[in-house]
Amino acid sequence: MDPAQSNVVSLDPQRVEIAMEVHKLAPPPPKTTLQKLKSRLKETFFPDDPLRQFKGQPLKKKWILGAQYIFPILQWGPNYSLKLLKSDIVSGLTIASLAIPQGISYAKLANLPPIVGLYSSFVPPLVYAVLGSSRDLAVGPVSIASLILGSMLRKEVSPTKEPLLFLQLAFTSTFFAGLVQASLGILRLGFIIDFLSKATLIGFMAGAAIIVSLQQLKSLLGIVHFTTQMGLVPVLSSVFHNTNESLRKPKLFWVSAGAPLVSVILSTLLVFAFKAQNHGISIIGKLQEGLNPLSWNMLHFHGGYLGLVMKTGLVTGIISLTEGIAVGRTFAALNDYQVDGNKEMMAIGLMNMVGSCTSCYITTGAFSRSAVNHNAGAKTAVSNIVMAVTVMVTLLFLMPLFQYTPNLVLGAIIISAVVGLIDVPAAYLIWKIDKFDFFVMLCAFFGVIFISVQNGLAFAVGISIVKILLQMTRPKTVMLGNIPGTDIYRNLHHYKEAKRIPGFLILSIEASINFANTTYLNERISRWIQEYEAEEEVSKQSNLLFVILNMSAVSSIDTSGVSLIKDLKKTMEKQGMELVLVNPVGEVMEKLQRADQAHEIMKADCLYLTVGEAVASLSSTVKAQTSNHV
Amino acid sequence: MDPAQSNVVSLDPQRVEIAMEVHKLAPPPPKTTLQKLKSRLKETFFPDDPLRQFKGQPLKKKWILGAQYIFPILQWGPNYSLKLLKSDIVSGLTIASLAIPQGISYAKLANLPPIVGLYSSFVPPLVYAVLGSSRDLAVGPVSIASLILGSMLRKEVSPTKEPLLFLQLAFTSTFFAGLVQASLGILRLGFIIDFLSKATLIGFMAGAAIIVSLQQLKSLLGIVHFTTQMGLVPVLSSVFHNTNESLRKPKLFWVSAGAPLVSVILSTLLVFAFKAQNHGISIIGKLQEGLNPLSWNMLHFHGGYLGLVMKTGLVTGIISLTEGIAVGRTFAALNDYQVDGNKEMMAIGLMNMVGSCTSCYITTGAFSRSAVNHNAGAKTAVSNIVMAVTVMVTLLFLMPLFQYTPNLVLGAIIISAVVGLIDVPAAYLIWKIDKFDFFVMLCAFFGVIFISVQNGLAFAVGISIVKILLQMTRPKTVMLGNIPGTDIYRNLHHYKEAKRIPGFLILSIEASINFANTTYLNERISRWIQEYEAEEEVSKQSNLLFVILNMSAVSSIDTSGVSLIKDLKKTMEKQGMELVLVNPVGEVMEKLQRADQAHEIMKADCLYLTVGEAVASLSSTVKAQTSNHV
Repeated sequence: MDPAQSNVVSLDPQRVEIAMEVHKLAPPPPKTTLQKLKSRLKETFFPDDPLRQFKGQPLKKKWILGAQYIFPILQWGPNYSLKLLKSDIVSGLTIASLAIPQGISYAKLANLPPIVGLYSSFVPPLVYAVLGSSRDLAVGPVSIASLILGSMLRKEVSPTKEPLLFLQLAFTSTFFAGLVQASLGILRLGFIIDFLSKATLIGFMAGAAIIVSLQQLKSLLGIVHFTTQMGLVPVLSSVFHNTNESLRKPKLFWVSAGAPLVSVILSTLLVFAFKAQNHGISIIGKLQEGLNPLSWNMLHFHGGYLGLVMKTGLVTGIISLTEGIAVGRTFAALNDYQVDGNKEMMAIGLMNMVGSCTSCYITTGAFSRSAVNHNAGAKTAVSNIVMAVTVMVTLLFLMPLFQYTPNLVLGAIIISAVVGLIDVPAAYLIWKIDKFDFFVMLCAFFGVIFISVQNGLAFAVGISIVKILLQMTRPKTVMLGNIPGTDIYRNLHHYKEAKRIPGFLILSIEASINFANTTYLNERISRWIQEYEAEEEVSKQSNLLFVILNMSAVSSIDTSGVSLIKDLKKTMEKQGMELVLVNPVGEVMEKLQRADQAHEIMKADCLYLTVGEAVASLSSTVKAQTSNHV
Repeated sequence: MDPAQSNVVSLDPQRVEIAMEVHKLAPPPPKTTLQKLKSRLKETFFPDDPLRQFKGQPLKKKWILGAQYIFPILQWGPNYSLKLLKSDIVSGLTIASLAIPQGISYAKLANLPPIVGLYSSFVPPLVYAVLGSSRDLAVGPVSIASLILGSMLRKEVSPTKEPLLFLQLAFTSTFFAGLVQASLGILRLGFIIDFLSKATLIGFMAGAAIIVSLQQLKSLLGIVHFTTQMGLVPVLSSVFHNTNESLRKPKLFWVSAGAPLVSVILSTLLVFAFKAQNHGISIIGKLQEGLNPLSWNMLHFHGGYLGLVMKTGLVTGIISLTEGIAVGRTFAALNDYQVDGNKEMMAIGLMNMVGSCTSCYITTGAFSRSAVNHNAGAKTAVSNIVMAVTVMVTLLFLMPLFQYTPNLVLGAIIISAVVGLIDVPAAYLIWKIDKFDFFVMLCAFFGVIFISVQNGLAFAVGISIVKILLQMTRPKTVMLGNIPGTDIYRNLHHYKEAKRIPGFLILSIEASINFANTTYLNERISRWIQEYEAEEEVSKQSNLLFVILNMSAVSSIDTSGVSLIKDLKKTMEKQGMELVLVNPVGEVMEKLQRADQAHEIMKADCLYLTVGEAVASLSSTVKAQTSNHV
């Protein structure tokens, strides 16, 4: 059988009429408004169908599943083995060696006392171990959130002049951040963090990294003269240069994992040996021993700073949530397990609310430490518990050792951590794939550097949303042509072999039709018609008789869109043309029917299932009419 | 020839391979980044291709066309005839009889001296007659914009205590409104007004009408005792009730057109005859004779009120522009001519900027007066000139006649005009077609009544945008099945006769893929797979081998979307499934290719032009492999 022949056949009117009876455009199965609302709400808020596993289970099993849902530790805890524990202890000790120097450093970045960084590496990991569902997430303070918290609060309160008030505001902001995070999870509004696109985040992180580095360099450079004599800066910078590299090479990760602690120990020993604190090297100073003091009485829910802490909580909450969820998802995908986004949000949120009552500031899953955790062989959240216990021992017994740690080594640790956030290869890939995404990235980058951390971010998010809206107001309309020898219709400007059918203008609308684009679509379709007629005049082909709108890709329509279709119908009839719709989806068909009491749009000979059938059927009727006239 | 047979044939692997060679998925014709940017910008800002008519014309003709483009009067002026003039004089006088009482009334609504309403009915119509392209638009002050201007300015400045400052701010706001309008036109950002959906506007207008009516009723009710004796209110209210009705019945429109002027004349005569001003009836009082004084020296571009006037200008500018453009488009569609939206914006904007320098406040095309103009037989913008001349004569010679016009008749005129803005049948139609649009309408309605005019409007616009964004974050994915006896694949849940193909999961994604929906799509697709596998376990069918994504409706993709496709590919390979893409459009295919250096996604056996071909080809390869194993 010759394929070309079988396709010619499909244009035979007789055959088409038979085929037409077979595939009528069916209206969708009837549904009440309530059913529609229910399924819409489910798709919007429960796309992951979290209650699926509960279906058809006996009551007792439901209770157990429910408890496991809330406390994932009940799920993996019973099967925990000595072998797993061994891996978790190794990885837990490894991340503790990172968490202690980083905790102290990041607390300084947030303008908080160094010890708050250690407090924040003790309680939150324990809370997360019970509530969280990621096996690899290493929880603690992170650079970006610390930077934002510090810089937002510092605008209204000086951390040096009013340190107690500043600390209170930091805890209160952390409480609000946790509240925002948990609410997003409970209200299943987690998709809000999706509006921070990858491009925005890459630009934002790089910008923030540069700001942080410059801040730290300033303090480092202030003592450059002295440290060159000490030979410390060159040593450190080379150490940290290697650190960064090795984060990308799992085999060398021990270097990166150990480097910060080794630097702290070495520099502390050097300062202690040479009594450098008397020669102008600033040191941390005496730290209080003991575990986290309770701080719920330091939360400020009244007075003039409420707006500030709510705003700070919102911004830091969303940013740290984005980091935590992204890290959790990345490692879950690597190890083939699922992380439930909304549940993670509740876990991280509760962790911060508990943290704010126990002298901790904002924490989340840190990317670099989670990578080390994963590479060191972490199997479960027990590695977080091991880390927390190590920090606890440090808090109880080892605090005096940090007295002589020079502040500049903390600056170096911060710089080395944040420089890794500048991801040039990712930026290059974005440039290659999508120029507009690259532009958004640049906006985030320069916005953060030249405007401010939160406004730069808001600016980039705003631009990405404007892009979506612009796309929405300018949906694509494509002229289709027939691929010879087939029933297939494709974009004429893309497929050179596609041919026009004389007398037909076949357009495909590739977006939902709504108030934001009806005016444009009206203009654009009339321009298609004018262009078509202008070309026909030149080539002296037959008149335009039918305008076929392929609605396959129109996934929804609103009242303005329905009016557009009605208006188009009327305008075309005045000009002696017929508007034909092809394959409107269920919802669209239903709305058109409800608006079309006179059955003008939805009559049978203006509605087809495929473009091919519409063309075949309509050209056969035209032919029949012409021959009758003859 | 049996159609069923010809379709069975298409599943024969031999035939498919031949067919496959015929329709390969072609990459789109190459274009440089600059070319793409150019065509994107053109679609965004010049969808109506305004320069089309200039193409291929000689230079002199281009100059003439250019002048006609800027001043449409040059286009229709030369062909103007006595016959047209006769129609225009009749309609011009008719709308003048409406414009004079309405002008005075609306100026009072804006808390401005009544005479400003007459000034605003003199200069702006003349400017519009030269620049505007609508033949039916009757230009002058309108109720909604007057209300907004008055209520926004009154919040910071009292019109009774500081009348001069208030007047200055009104002129300055008008100037900014004109600037905003002209800029939207010049920058071709006219689509911004598209974000005021029909539903929003209907709710907003009804809410504003109720606020205005209540305001006016308060002052009317204050004198109810007196007026009942005068018998004026019942008379007026019955007159205006009829007025409203008759606006919808063109044959009776003379009643509606004449009623306001007749009421003014009658009530003025009554007051004058009975000396009612001495019995508590408030009257307009003495009005200054003479034409518009220049007011450019009253514009305030400095000092503490700049923010207020800019905000007021923005809101009134956009609202009045929306009304003007909508009215222009409505009557253009009725009479089969085109109105260029962006050009109209420039015309209306310039009209207001000139107006603000000649003691006019914000004006636009008024719906009710344009309807009267149209029904009275207006043929060109000359009817606006006739109206302006009539107003001029009034300003020069007839001002003393208005001295005894009672204020309450102005209130009645306002109420009668705005009650017509409450469009219950349109609201009912919206309820029938789209429940969410109805909700937006209610938000606009109650927002305006209970919050404030501008915030209520902003609230409704915000909700409609959030709806679009929500739709964007939750794109539809649909499972397709084969309609037996054909190559057609359609929604399984919509077409009952559609059948699954064992071993294949065929999904159609019905929106562009971008950062806002990649997370959702990932979750949703994995849920489709899990559901499919759960059902297969029950029915013991073959394993899932292929996941086919129909990308026909994915009109664009960004870097996050590209990562999604890559991630899906990897995840499915781990689970022993193959991801197959069908018919990605040019732009999507290009981006995927650029990101896919290893040729994993875009290899030939994972890319097909139609779902039918993909299924046929893949099932034949599977069969071949199975038979080889046997």
